Amino acid sequence: MTQRPLRLGLLGGGPGSFIGAVHRMAAGLDGRFTLVAGAFSRSLDKSRAQAERWGVATDRAYDGIEAMLASEQARENGIEAIAIATPNDSHFAIAKAALEAGLPVICDKPMTATLAEAEALAPIVAASRQPFALTYTYTGYAMIREARARVAAGAIGRVRKITVDYPQGWLSDAIEGENMQAGWRTDPARAGAGGAIGDIGVHAFQLAEYVSGLQASELVADLPRVVPGRRLDDDCNILLRFAGDVPGVLTASQIATGERNGLRLRIYGDKGGLEWCHDAPGDLVLRWPDARSEIFHAGAPTLSPDAQRAIRLPSGHPEGFIEAFATLYSDFADAIHGISGRLDTVLPGIRDGLRSMRFVGCAVRSHDARAWLPFPGDPA
Amino acid sequence: MTQRPLRLGLLGGGPGSFIGAVHRMAAGLDGRFTLVAGAFSRSLDKSRAQAERWGVATDRAYDGIEAMLASEQARENGIEAIAIATPNDSHFAIAKAALEAGLPVICDKPMTATLAEAEALAPIVAASRQPFALTYTYTGYAMIREARARVAAGAIGRVRKITVDYPQGWLSDAIEGENMQAGWRTDPARAGAGGAIGDIGVHAFQLAEYVSGLQASELVADLPRVVPGRRLDDDCNILLRFAGDVPGVLTASQIATGERNGLRLRIYGDKGGLEWCHDAPGDLVLRWPDARSEIFHAGAPTLSPDAQRAIRLPSGHPEGFIEAFATLYSDFADAIHGISGRLDTVLPGIRDGLRSMRFVGCAVRSHDARAWLPFPGDPA
Amino acid sequence: MTQRPLRLGLLGGGPGSFIGAVHRMAAGLDGRFTLVAGAFSRSLDKSRAQAERWGVATDRAYDGIEAMLASEQARENGIEAIAIATPNDSHFAIAKAALEAGLPVICDKPMTATLAEAEALAPIVAASRQPFALTYTYTGYAMIREARARVAAGAIGRVRKITVDYPQGWLSDAIEGENMQAGWRTDPARAGAGGAIGDIGVHAFQLAEYVSGLQASELVADLPRVVPGRRLDDDCNILLRFAGDVPGVLTASQIATGERNGLRLRIYGDKGGLEWCHDAPGDLVLRWPDARSEIFHAGAPTLSPDAQRAIRLPSGHPEGFIEAFATLYSDFADAIHGISGRLDTVLPGIRDGLRSMRFVGCAVRSHDARAWLPFPGDPA
Amino acid sequence: MTQRPLRLGLLGGGPGSFIGAVHRMAAGLDGRFTLVAGAFSRSLDKSRAQAERWGVATDRAYDGIEAMLASEQARENGIEAIAIATPNDSHFAIAKAALEAGLPVICDKPMTATLAEAEALAPIVAASRQPFALTYTYTGYAMIREARARVAAGAIGRVRKITVDYPQGWLSDAIEGENMQAGWRTDPARAGAGGAIGDIGVHAFQLAEYVSGLQASELVADLPRVVPGRRLDDDCNILLRFAGDVPGVLTASQIATGERNGLRLRIYGDKGGLEWCHDAPGDLVLRWPDARSEIFHAGAPTLSPDAQRAIRLPSGHPEGFIEAFATLYSDFADAIHGISGRLDTVLPGIRDGLRSMRFVGCAVRSHDARAWLPFPGDPA
Repeated sequence: MTQRPLRLGLLGGGPGSFIGAVHRMAAGLDGRFTLVAGAFSRSLDKSRAQAERWGVATDRAYDGIEAMLASEQARENGIEAIAIATPNDSHFAIAKAALEAGLPVICDKPMTATLAEAEALAPIVAASRQPFALTYTYTGYAMIREARARVAAGAIGRVRKITVDYPQGWLSDAIEGENMQAGWRTDPARAGAGGAIGDIGVHAFQLAEYVSGLQASELVADLPRVVPGRRLDDDCNILLRFAGDVPGVLTASQIATGERNGLRLRIYGDKGGLEWCHDAPGDLVLRWPDARSEIFHAGAPTLSPDAQRAIRLPSGHPEGFIEAFATLYSDFADAIHGISGRLDTVLPGIRDGLRSMRFVGCAVRSHDARAWLPFPGDPA
Repeated sequence: MTQRPLRLGLLGGGPGSFIGAVHRMAAGLDGRFTLVAGAFSRSLDKSRAQAERWGVATDRAYDGIEAMLASEQARENGIEAIAIATPNDSHFAIAKAALEAGLPVICDKPMTATLAEAEALAPIVAASRQPFALTYTYTGYAMIREARARVAAGAIGRVRKITVDYPQGWLSDAIEGENMQAGWRTDPARAGAGGAIGDIGVHAFQLAEYVSGLQASELVADLPRVVPGRRLDDDCNILLRFAGDVPGVLTASQIATGERNGLRLRIYGDKGGLEWCHDAPGDLVLRWPDARSEIFHAGAPTLSPDAQRAIRLPSGHPEGFIEAFATLYSDFADAIHGISGRLDTVLPGIRDGLRSMRFVGCAVRSHDARAWLPFPGDPA
Repeated sequence: MTQRPLRLGLLGGGPGSFIGAVHRMAAGLDGRFTLVAGAFSRSLDKSRAQAERWGVATDRAYDGIEAMLASEQARENGIEAIAIATPNDSHFAIAKAALEAGLPVICDKPMTATLAEAEALAPIVAASRQPFALTYTYTGYAMIREARARVAAGAIGRVRKITVDYPQGWLSDAIEGENMQAGWRTDPARAGAGGAIGDIGVHAFQLAEYVSGLQASELVADLPRVVPGRRLDDDCNILLRFAGDVPGVLTASQIATGERNGLRLRIYGDKGGLEWCHDAPGDLVLRWPDARSEIFHAGAPTLSPDAQRAIRLPSGHPEGFIEAFATLYSDFADAIHGISGRLDTVLPGIRDGLRSMRFVGCAVRSHDARAWLPFPGDPA
Repeated sequence: MTQRPLRLGLLGGGPGSFIGAVHRMAAGLDGRFTLVAGAFSRSLDKSRAQAERWGVATDRAYDGIEAMLASEQARENGIEAIAIATPNDSHFAIAKAALEAGLPVICDKPMTATLAEAEALAPIVAASRQPFALTYTYTGYAMIREARARVAAGAIGRVRKITVDYPQGWLSDAIEGENMQAGWRTDPARAGAGGAIGDIGVHAFQLAEYVSGLQASELVADLPRVVPGRRLDDDCNILLRFAGDVPGVLTASQIATGERNGLRLRIYGDKGGLEWCHDAPGDLVLRWPDARSEIFHAGAPTLSPDAQRAIRLPSGHPEGFIEAFATLYSDFADAIHGISGRLDTVLPGIRDGLRSMRFVGCAVRSHDARAWLPFPGDPA
C-alpha cells in the first residue's frame, strides 16, 4: 500500500547547524515526509531565511515550538509530525509540547539534557500514544541491523565480549569560543552532565546493547577533561560488565586528534566474532576460528529483512550517513501509519533514551567516585 | 541568493528501474528540484502507480515524452527541466523533443544508442541554448573532483600513466532472460554497439580523461563475449595512448564474478601518483617517491572549491552514490539559473557524450580489426 | 667493523614449540649468531632429535641448563650467549645460572613467573655485568621504532591519550587439555599470576610505554575468566592513567574468537594521532586535524636511524615477525660487542621486565579489589 | 627423515646488491642450506670483504664461477649447490658451468639475458640431470600456492578472466647513472631485450599462468619508454588471450611514481573471483556472487598442503618476502634430496624460464609491430 508523504515540522537546523540539514535530507529521501514548516532558529528572521533556502513557505517559519503549534494546529494541512534537532537542553520542552498536542516526535539524541527530564518524558510519551523515535543514526545502517540480526540468530554463538570505540578529534583544541557546535556541547548548562559521553558515548553505548542484545549491569568510568579549561569530559573510557558477566570496553573521545568519526564495534561470541566500522559502513566482517574472515556487503541477497529494508541501491553503490538517517525516518513513518512494530525494537525510542541517560548518570557518578558501580538493567 | 526548487519531469524510473529512483532522490536531496511529473513507464497504468508511490500527482503521470510535453507546456506551473533515465535507444528522441520544446535536459549515459544519434544531437543542443547535462555519476564525487583539481594544479607533475579498472560481476550468468536491466543492456537493438563498454566502459573512459585532463589518441581494444550466447561484449580490455604518448590501460567487465562495482582510477605523474577507488569514495590517495602515502579525506578543509561544493557533511560522515548524483543535479540547477560555468567542464555535457560515443565506436572497430586505431581528439 | 657470528645456546624449542623455532631463525637471519648448542627439551632424546633437525651437533644437545653450562664452559668454542624460550616458570633459574656463569642472556617475556623472581633477578643481572635482553618482539618492528622516535621528537605534540588492543582468539575453547602451549599458559603454577595479561597483556603494556615514553601511574583492571574452568584470566581490560594524568585503555584477549594476533596501538597528541597495527606492520599511520592521513611505509628514506636499522629490504618487500625478532638479536649482538647503548632503551631489558611484572601484579590486585590502584613509576 | 644442511655457493650478492643478501637469508632460514662459499663480486677484494661480513671463510671467496668450481670441486666438503644472483647477462655462463660440473642450480629470473641463451640452456639442464630452479619469489608465498590449489580444485569454477598488475615507481627518475641496480636493469647489453617487462613483467606473467593453470596464446603489447633517454621499456601494458580464449590484462611499470611493489593478481571464474596482493601477502580474498567476500589468512588449518608447507608461524604472525624466498630454497633442497616432485610444477624451473623468455620476445615483437601476435603454448 502507498502512503502520501507526511507533513513534517522541524525544530532546529538554523545556519551553522549540521544535523538540521541532515534531518531535511533524510526526511525526504524515501518520500515518506515533506518538510512544510520549521522553527529553524530562535530568531524569526533567521528562521525565515532558512525556510526560503529550503523551499518552505516563509509563513510557516516560526521562532519556537509554541508559535509553530499554534499556527499549524489551526491549518487544515498542518504538520503531522515534529522533528527535534535543537541543542539538548530544549529537547524536553519541545517534545512535551508536541506530544501533548498529539503529534508524533522524532528527536535527536541524547533525549534530554538531564535524567530528571528523561524520566519526566517517559509518562508523557506513554500518555500521548504517539510514536516517539530517537535518531540513533547508526541503528539506521543496514549492516548494523544485519549484525544485530545475526547475533540474535546465534551466528557467533553466545556473546562473550563487547568492545566499542568512538574516536573523534574535532575538539582537540579549545574551539568552543568560535564554533557554535562546540560551544553548546562543552557547556554543562546546555549539554547536560556529559560532554563526550553525552554527545557520542551514548551512541557507542546504545549500539553495544542494540547489537549484542545484552544490557550492561556494572561499570567503572574514567571521564577526563583533557583540553585545559573544559568543564565536561572530552574523553571517555569505560569498563563494563553486561548481563551474564560478559566483559565490555567502551571508549569515546573528542580529543583523538586526527580521527574523524571512526565508530567501531566488535562483538565476540563462542563461535565467531563480528566487526563493523563506520569507515566502511557497507561491510560487516565476521571472523571465524579457522583463520577465515567473511565480509557481507550491503546489498547481499542473504541479508536479514531488517537490513534489506535499509538498502536502496545495488551492492557496490555506497550509501552513507544520510541514507542511514533516512531509514530511521522511514521506520518512523511506518510507526505513524501503524504498519510496523519496529518502534522501541529496531527503531530506538523512549526506552533507549531513558537507558542512555541513566548510563551517562551512572558513568559520571562512577568517575567521581573512582569506583565500579552497579548499573541496573531495565525491567523486561 | 536563494532559488526555489525547479520543477522536474522524469522519463523512466518504472518498477524494476534502479537509476530512475536514484534520479528522484538525487534531484531532491539538495533542494534544487522537485519531481512534479513523470513518464515512469510506457504503460500509463504503471506510470501512474509509480507517481502515487512517489507523491507525484497522478494526473501528471504520462506514458511518454509527447504526452508529457503537451500537457506540461500547457500548465502555468509546468515542468522546467527533463531528466532521462530510460534505456539507451530512447535517449535521442526524448532529448530532442525536450530541447526543442525549450527545456533543459539531464540525461543518463551513454548519451545515445548510436554515434549517428550522438552526432545528430549535438547541433540540437547547440540550437536549443538549453543546458544539457550527462549523469556521469563518478564526476559528482568530491574526491574525483579533488583528483581532477590536483592533477590540473600539477600536484603529481606531468601525467605519464593512466589506469582505470571497472569490474562488475552481475552479468556473470546469462540472466538476461529474467532480469529487465540485464535484458536491455545485452541487446544490441536497445543498448547500441557496446555491451560492457557502453554501459560501464564509458564511465571509465570519461573518468580517465576528466581527471587526467588528457585526451586519448590511439587504442587497441579486446571486447570478448565471455558468457556463451552474448551478442555484445561483457568484458572490455583496452590499451590506450593519450596526448603526448602517455600510455593507459582501461578495463571494464561485467563478468568479473564477485565484484560489485569497484571502479578504480590510478594516475601517475613524474612527481607522484594518485588513486581513487569507489570502495572508499571519500578517500583520495596520493603516493610519493619517498615511500609515503597521503590520504585526503572528504571534508578536509584543504580541498579545492570544486570538491567542497560536492560535500554536505563533516569529515567522517560517509556520503555515497546518491550524494554524488545529487551534486550533478546541483550543478545542473546552477546551469539553468545561469550562475556557473561548470557545464561541459566540471559537469559533463554534450562534449563528454559525443566523445564517449566515439570511443565506443573506435573500440568496437579496433576489436573487429584486431588492430591499434587512431582515436582523434576533439578540436580544442 | 665486521664481527663473526656469536655462538648461541638455546633453551626450549622442542617439538610443538612455536617460539623456539623463531629464536633459531631470528638468531641466524642477520648473521650475528650461530645456534651451536641447545637444551631443546627436558628429555635428552627429544633434545637430540631436535638438534639433528636443526643441524646442531647432537653431542651439544642437552637436557637442561646445568648440563649445557657444564659441558659448554669446558669447550674452547663453547657458547657465548644463552637464549631462553622455555615456559615462564623456568626463566628465573636458567637466567640466573647463565648470568652467574658469565653469559649474556636473551629471554622471552614475561621475564619470570612471579614478581618475587623478577625482583631477585635484577641484582643478578646487575652483578653479572652481562647484557640481559627480553624479546618483546613488537619492539623489533621498524615502524614501532619509528613511532617511538616520532613521538619523542614531538611529531604528534604532547601525548594526551593512549589506546592499545591485543585481541587473539586461540583460547576461545578449552583446548588446554590437548594443546601444550595452551596447557602451560593457563596453568597458574607454570604461567604465574596472569593468564592473558601475562602472555600478551604485557606486550601491550610494554609497547604503550615504549612508544609513548610515558609511564603508567594508576589503573583499574578487569580480568575475567571467560571460558568455564579457566583458573587464570583469558581476557583483560584495563583503564590507566599515565604520567601527567594522560588517560589510557589497554585490552588483551585470548577469547576474541576469530582474531589472530591483531595488536594495535594508537597514541594521540595535541597535534596529531598515530596508529600501528600488526596486520600491516610495515605501515605507520599518522592522522592530522586537517582530515588528512599520512602513511609512512617501511623502507622510506625519511625514517629514523632506529627504524632504518630494523629494515633489510627495499620498501614494498614485506618483512614480518621473524625479521622483527631478528632485529632484537642484532641489537643483542651489538650489546655483547659493546658497540651500542640500545640495551634498556631501544632493546628491552631488565627494566622492562621488572616493570611488566609489577604491572601484572598491580592489575591482578586491582581486579581482586574491584578498585583503582596507584601504579608507581620507576625511579628515573 | 632429517637431512643435514646442504653446502651452498653463491654468485653475486656483493655490496649494493639487494637480492644476494636475500639469497643468504632465505637459504639458511629453514636450515636446509649453509652458505659456505661465494663469488660475491668480480673483484676478489670485494668478494672477500663480503665473505667476512657474512661469516664465510675468506679462502672460499672467489671472483667468479671458474675459480669457485676449480677450488670447491677439489675439496672434500665442497659446495653441493649453486645460487645465481648476478645480473641477467651472466646467468647462462654460470648456470652452464655449474650444471656441467654436476651441481644443482637455483637462479634468479629472468633465466637468461636472451631467448637464444634460454633455448641453449634447456638441453644442458636436461643432460645434467641436476635440479634447476628459478626464484620466482611470489610462487613461494603460501597464499599464492593456495590460490593455485583452489583454482585447480575448481573453487572459482572455469577461469574466464585474468588480470595482473605489477606497479613500481623506483625508476620514475633517470637514476641509472648513480644507482647500480638501475644501471644494469636499464642497459640492453646487460638486461636483455626487456626492461620493466624483463625485470618484473615476467613475474607477473609467470604468476598469471602459475595460478590460473592456463597458458597465454595471443597478445598485443605496448612497451613505452617513458623516462626520456631510456633505451628499454620502463612501462609495460599487454592484452592477452589465454587458452580457451580467456581474456587477460597484464601491466608492469617501473615509473608508477609512489608505488613500491604492489603486485596484484585477480582471477575470475564462472563461480567466483580471487585476488591476491603483495601488500597483504598473507591474505587470499575470494569473492562470491552473493556480495560476500571470504578472506583466507595464512595459517588457516584448511589450506592446501602446498600452502601449509610454505608457512612457519601461527596465523596472525606475518611472514614476508624472505620467507617466501626461503620456501623456494626448501623445495630446492627437497628436489636435490629427490624427495619431491615439486620441481617444474610448484617450484619453477627450466620450463617457466623458457616460457618467460619467449613471452618477453613475443611482447617486444608485438610492440614493434603494433599488432596482436600468436604466442604458442608449450607442448604438453
